[in-house]
Amino acid sequence: MLSPSDKALVPFVSVDNMMRLVHHVGLETMITRIADAIEADFLRWDAFDKTPRVASHSDVGVIELMPTSDGEMYGFKYVNGHPKNTAEGLQTVTAFGLLADVQSGYPVLLSEMTLLTALRTAAMSALAAKHLAPEGARTMAMIGNGAQSEFQCRAFKAICGVDTVRLYDIDPAATAKCARNLEGSGLTVVSCTSAQEATVGADIITTCTADKQYATILTDNMVGAGVHINAIGGDCPGKTELHKDILHRSDIFVEYPPQTRIEGEIQALADDHPVIELHDVFAGRVTGRTSDKQITLFDSVGFAIEDFSALRTVKTLIDGTAFYDDLDMLADPDDPRDLYGMLHRAK
Amino acid sequence: MLSPSDKALVPFVSVDNMMRLVHHVGLETMITRIADAIEADFLRWDAFDKTPRVASHSDVGVIELMPTSDGEMYGFKYVNGHPKNTAEGLQTVTAFGLLADVQSGYPVLLSEMTLLTALRTAAMSALAAKHLAPEGARTMAMIGNGAQSEFQCRAFKAICGVDTVRLYDIDPAATAKCARNLEGSGLTVVSCTSAQEATVGADIITTCTADKQYATILTDNMVGAGVHINAIGGDCPGKTELHKDILHRSDIFVEYPPQTRIEGEIQALADDHPVIELHDVFAGRVTGRTSDKQITLFDSVGFAIEDFSALRTVKTLIDGTAFYDDLDMLADPDDPRDLYGMLHRAK
Repeated sequence: MLSPSDKALVPFVSVDNMMRLVHHVGLETMITRIADAIEADFLRWDAFDKTPRVASHSDVGVIELMPTSDGEMYGFKYVNGHPKNTAEGLQTVTAFGLLADVQSGYPVLLSEMTLLTALRTAAMSALAAKHLAPEGARTMAMIGNGAQSEFQCRAFKAICGVDTVRLYDIDPAATAKCARNLEGSGLTVVSCTSAQEATVGADIITTCTADKQYATILTDNMVGAGVHINAIGGDCPGKTELHKDILHRSDIFVEYPPQTRIEGEIQALADDHPVIELHDVFAGRVTGRTSDKQITLFDSVGFAIEDFSALRTVKTLIDGTAFYDDLDMLADPDDPRDLYGMLHRAK
Repeated sequence: MLSPSDKALVPFVSVDNMMRLVHHVGLETMITRIADAIEADFLRWDAFDKTPRVASHSDVGVIELMPTSDGEMYGFKYVNGHPKNTAEGLQTVTAFGLLADVQSGYPVLLSEMTLLTALRTAAMSALAAKHLAPEGARTMAMIGNGAQSEFQCRAFKAICGVDTVRLYDIDPAATAKCARNLEGSGLTVVSCTSAQEATVGADIITTCTADKQYATILTDNMVGAGVHINAIGGDCPGKTELHKDILHRSDIFVEYPPQTRIEGEIQALADDHPVIELHDVFAGRVTGRTSDKQITLFDSVGFAIEDFSALRTVKTLIDGTAFYDDLDMLADPDDPRDLYGMLHRAK
């Protein structure tokens, strides 16, 4: 057991240290490690406390807390979503997260999660596609070339064997940025001038756009038989990306139905529209892809367990490294009943 | 407007800096400032998003998130409650909190809240008593002499004019510690050997014990007419301090009924047992104390708005001081869509 004075200091992974850690481990390795942790945690699905995230909505965005626990560790993420931020030079999504020891309630890790969320979102997408995409899928359409796009491309390369990405964004500058960033990654990059063009020959279609409104990024005619759709951007009430007809042609896979019905593409459907839970696919209880004509759709919204998995991966990876600082975040009097005395003596 | 690079750094108030800040401002002044902020925030009650806290219970304790927002700022607190921690040399309660800008979703303050929670709990208790305690109350029984006790005594001195405290704890060492800590505070301290003795001549009775079980710290015969009871320690399901008969003789005042009915003393009563909301008393919509025979009971559980008030007080107080560090917690690429590029270039 750690002594109280050790427990009073909380390891903190800053943005700078997270970047160092990613480069130390290697981006694709780190995404793969996180995907492995997510898969392992989804395989013990019943061990987790599950609750839809706690959201505070305003006119311009949302601030959410996403807690979960497996009974040994407790984790939560703070994350905002403000589509208008980009125009002001700010991130649409920023995040940080925490792990704590359930036995003592003491935090054991505080971490930036803007970068880590990008990694875990990409990891989750590629993990779902590993189970759902058609055999031999090598080409992915990447529609929406914002902050998440390159991470998606690298994750699908590392985990699914994708070798070609077809990029499209309503802003050509975003596509150019994404293409430039992927130079030297080993991926063949094709920049397209329409969503329709991006989907040509794609086995996997990823949509990752940020408008907080009902949008139709994909229309029915763009989606051929056998395709796997990885729908990332629809993740809050009123925010969707796919035409409803596509949903009716697809088998729909979700993380946690109570949350996805509120936030995902399926908010456009009846409350009892059938969906398949990914943990059942990972565990082999349900077959994901049943034919090469089937359209599979991962209606991704992001679930607290994925953040938990990412945080515990970081906790493991920083052990014995210098990629964290100790944060004086917990009061630690010699006598735990003597908080006042600690304060008094500090004078 | 702050530039993004300013916003990427989050002011962090460590335990050490919180102690410096308290000594810089003065303990009683700081408690009074927090009480003033709570009162001001309770007077604009309808401006706040209110929700019962999000609790994760285990055999040995609870971890909670307490979010709220007034539409301009968003705040939340992480707090644990682990009664068995004391025996292991750890704090029963540790906490930290965050304020964020609703417009951007960006955090603007991260702070330790173990000390700050002690201050705001004391501030809230004294604020309630200012409105409810009998005229000319000068003597308080302080039952339970743990980490919160001295803060309660100082708050009641500063805000309610209490000049004498009568201490009792099942552990005489805790009473001795409390008495020692209050030397030189200006309070007359009487150490008692039973709860009964502590209540003799007391106008105000504060109970602040930590057992996670139905306990009976106060029995009916200890509570005379006209007394104000400040019940702090009953604050989660299964944890109460007062005999049910006392509840039936009292007018019961609460922070936020949906939460108090789950966590407070009134969990022992029918769901529709009448309670009075303190914000109605502060605003003058309801009269708190109506006679000198009336027993008033503040069934305190601690509500998210109080933490919000405490955090915004700290944010104001640290402005222009050195009592914080800038934390590199938010990723801040030059181009907000180029998170990957920021990571890539950091190599």
